[in-house]
Amino acid sequence: MTTKWMVKNGTFAVLQEGQPVIRGYMVVEDDRITYLGEEEPQVDAETRVMDGTHLLFLPGLVNTHGHAAMSLLRGFGDDLALQVWLQEKMWPMEAKFTADDVYWGTSLSVLEMLKGGTTTFVDMYDHMDQVAKVVQDSGMRGVLTRGVIGLCPPEVQKQKLDEAVAFAKDWHGQAEGRITTMISPHAPYTCPPDFIEKFVQAAHDLNLPIHTHMSETAAEVQQNVNDYGLRPVAHLEKLGVFSRPALVAHAVHLTDEEIEILAKHQVAVSHNPGSNLKLASGVARVPELLKAGVTVSLGTDGPASNNNLDMFEEMRLAALIHKGVSGDPTAVPAAEALRMGTEYGAKSAFLDNVGRLAVGMKADMIALNTDQAHFLPRTDYISHSIYSASAKDVEHVWVDGKQVVKHGSCLTLDEERIRREAQRSFERLSTL
Amino acid sequence: MTTKWMVKNGTFAVLQEGQPVIRGYMVVEDDRITYLGEEEPQVDAETRVMDGTHLLFLPGLVNTHGHAAMSLLRGFGDDLALQVWLQEKMWPMEAKFTADDVYWGTSLSVLEMLKGGTTTFVDMYDHMDQVAKVVQDSGMRGVLTRGVIGLCPPEVQKQKLDEAVAFAKDWHGQAEGRITTMISPHAPYTCPPDFIEKFVQAAHDLNLPIHTHMSETAAEVQQNVNDYGLRPVAHLEKLGVFSRPALVAHAVHLTDEEIEILAKHQVAVSHNPGSNLKLASGVARVPELLKAGVTVSLGTDGPASNNNLDMFEEMRLAALIHKGVSGDPTAVPAAEALRMGTEYGAKSAFLDNVGRLAVGMKADMIALNTDQAHFLPRTDYISHSIYSASAKDVEHVWVDGKQVVKHGSCLTLDEERIRREAQRSFERLSTL
Repeated sequence: MTTKWMVKNGTFAVLQEGQPVIRGYMVVEDDRITYLGEEEPQVDAETRVMDGTHLLFLPGLVNTHGHAAMSLLRGFGDDLALQVWLQEKMWPMEAKFTADDVYWGTSLSVLEMLKGGTTTFVDMYDHMDQVAKVVQDSGMRGVLTRGVIGLCPPEVQKQKLDEAVAFAKDWHGQAEGRITTMISPHAPYTCPPDFIEKFVQAAHDLNLPIHTHMSETAAEVQQNVNDYGLRPVAHLEKLGVFSRPALVAHAVHLTDEEIEILAKHQVAVSHNPGSNLKLASGVARVPELLKAGVTVSLGTDGPASNNNLDMFEEMRLAALIHKGVSGDPTAVPAAEALRMGTEYGAKSAFLDNVGRLAVGMKADMIALNTDQAHFLPRTDYISHSIYSASAKDVEHVWVDGKQVVKHGSCLTLDEERIRREAQRSFERLSTL
Repeated sequence: MTTKWMVKNGTFAVLQEGQPVIRGYMVVEDDRITYLGEEEPQVDAETRVMDGTHLLFLPGLVNTHGHAAMSLLRGFGDDLALQVWLQEKMWPMEAKFTADDVYWGTSLSVLEMLKGGTTTFVDMYDHMDQVAKVVQDSGMRGVLTRGVIGLCPPEVQKQKLDEAVAFAKDWHGQAEGRITTMISPHAPYTCPPDFIEKFVQAAHDLNLPIHTHMSETAAEVQQNVNDYGLRPVAHLEKLGVFSRPALVAHAVHLTDEEIEILAKHQVAVSHNPGSNLKLASGVARVPELLKAGVTVSLGTDGPASNNNLDMFEEMRLAALIHKGVSGDPTAVPAAEALRMGTEYGAKSAFLDNVGRLAVGMKADMIALNTDQAHFLPRTDYISHSIYSASAKDVEHVWVDGKQVVKHGSCLTLDEERIRREAQRSFERLSTL
């Protein structure tokens, strides 16, 4: 039986040319939007009607790069030089993570993301079956991939690759289709070239996209040149990575020529402004990437290098820093930042029918409470969404047409238990 | 009769060397903190006790630069070149502002600020008696000043100066001492030198500090050189502005020599990172200013160029952008960003006994709800305050020992009426 319901008197961010916002009606049937317009549609008397007055509906936010389980290390070492942070803080702790830790750390992040309006997340980590279980339980949409570091003997490399392939094969399309998978060599500086080529082959065999870190720091770009005589973009191109649909995270340090190569191969970029600033990696050339036609979306990166999962903050940072750094106040306008957090996010994660409010699209959507001081006056709700709003303004969240957050409370997860178990995991890890 | 109450089991951000946070007890008597420590103090049986479990107490945030009434223009023209924004959007609308508009616009901002944990704001605008009334009604602390643009005939200049002086004299110390005043020539590029000198004389006569805009854009610095043969810092020094306690807003474009001059005269700087990025003014040299010993605090600037009044966002931007732009991940650590938003803010606004949680200080303070995913694990509450928190995490707010926000609701203002009247003001202004 079809589940059908309607919103009346809502405000909907449709981001259409000349009409960024529609005031009116939306009908959802099962997982899809079947009507969206100013005119009241004909519906049966039994159709449930929700009053959308004081609610601003946006497409669900898409977080295109992260390591959710790292929430367990939030605030555990900040304001440190990158190598000190990694070698003395992150890596020793992460080496101790059990499957259970990944389950609770990911649950903590998924809870924060859902309540903050993120309906899809891309996650690259280890113990990915645990992450997939959290996606199943939570009702969220997840694009999941086992990130493999290849600095190990060939037999360990093989074991990790097999694990990554098995995960990608087993879980693709699971959770009523809410889980899709990718193939991920971690980064050019952590995977030898021949190992990366094996991932490319696996991605071809499984017909899956590739996700990897690329050119996050100037130092790693220089190392790539020293080791392989090429900058990372040309190096990955040579290894065949861009022969697959590909999403690269960070892409902070790029030449004009590299931007052209990314555009040519339609490589999507996950821009992580909060993480890049906090770790002092630099400021990505986002206006130039967008101008070249590259799909640029937004990611929080792991919660230990951000330190929250508020995608409104990433959208705002994207809209703000490129103005300040370029000196051009028209760089990355509000509507473009919103598209980066929604439509371009879905495209970067290779998801069809997600990321926009329109008939035929999946009902992955969120409603903000606009009955608040910082949403007044009612001048421009796209501007308010980017320059004024935060995760805490999210009132309701739906994924695949099912409500997962109602009046700020998560309907699918046991919030109190997750908070308790995540704290317990951290305490155990820090005393091991 | 003394009003005395106590918090038990609270967590208090004291930012002391080696002990950033204390878990324990705080006693407040009337407007002051009279006890703060780990040991339970002896109190009478009648003393009201508040449970502070899951609450993180911070000093109230101090917003050291803004134009509160400009909330009426939030979202009215974004992503535009500065001169287009000013000349086609802001100025024509502001010219129509009545006293009533300033009252409701300021009320909207004060509501947002109080609920978001800001207990003191510096405000430079017109119709300042209206702003003062809002401060009286709301229970907030305000450092108020009539900002005067001097691009007008001498008789109009004189009238404006007289008005600014009368306001500063009449309102200093009002609202049980919660209002203090300053003297404000708007900026070196909007006030002729001889007019600025009259403000300096007035500030001497009234024994008040001076507040002005300075070096916000590269263009205005160049214009100053063209017009007066000096960059703005030397120009203002020459005119005697720094012979008074002084607070300059923005200070984005500074040479090493200018930083030395500001340090020598103990001029305080209000850093406005959100506004500076959004208007593409540039990135202030905050690490260098702090290193030179300059007091750097934080301001939101007007809500039309920000576009919210979330001081947590300004603290986070200050902690993030200077890392990303300088390439140094240790620049502006979390505790320093928190001091910029609190202790240095109070110092910049020339307020004694405000800005820290310590015995003898005014009980201007806020409590955040830490029972949320993004405050876990309980690793480092100073880090969480800066890198994870937002205005919406504020649960309670006290100014001068009196509670003004309780469980997220403002006790002193009629929220619904303010939202309605602010929207009405905007609608009237936009159809005039």
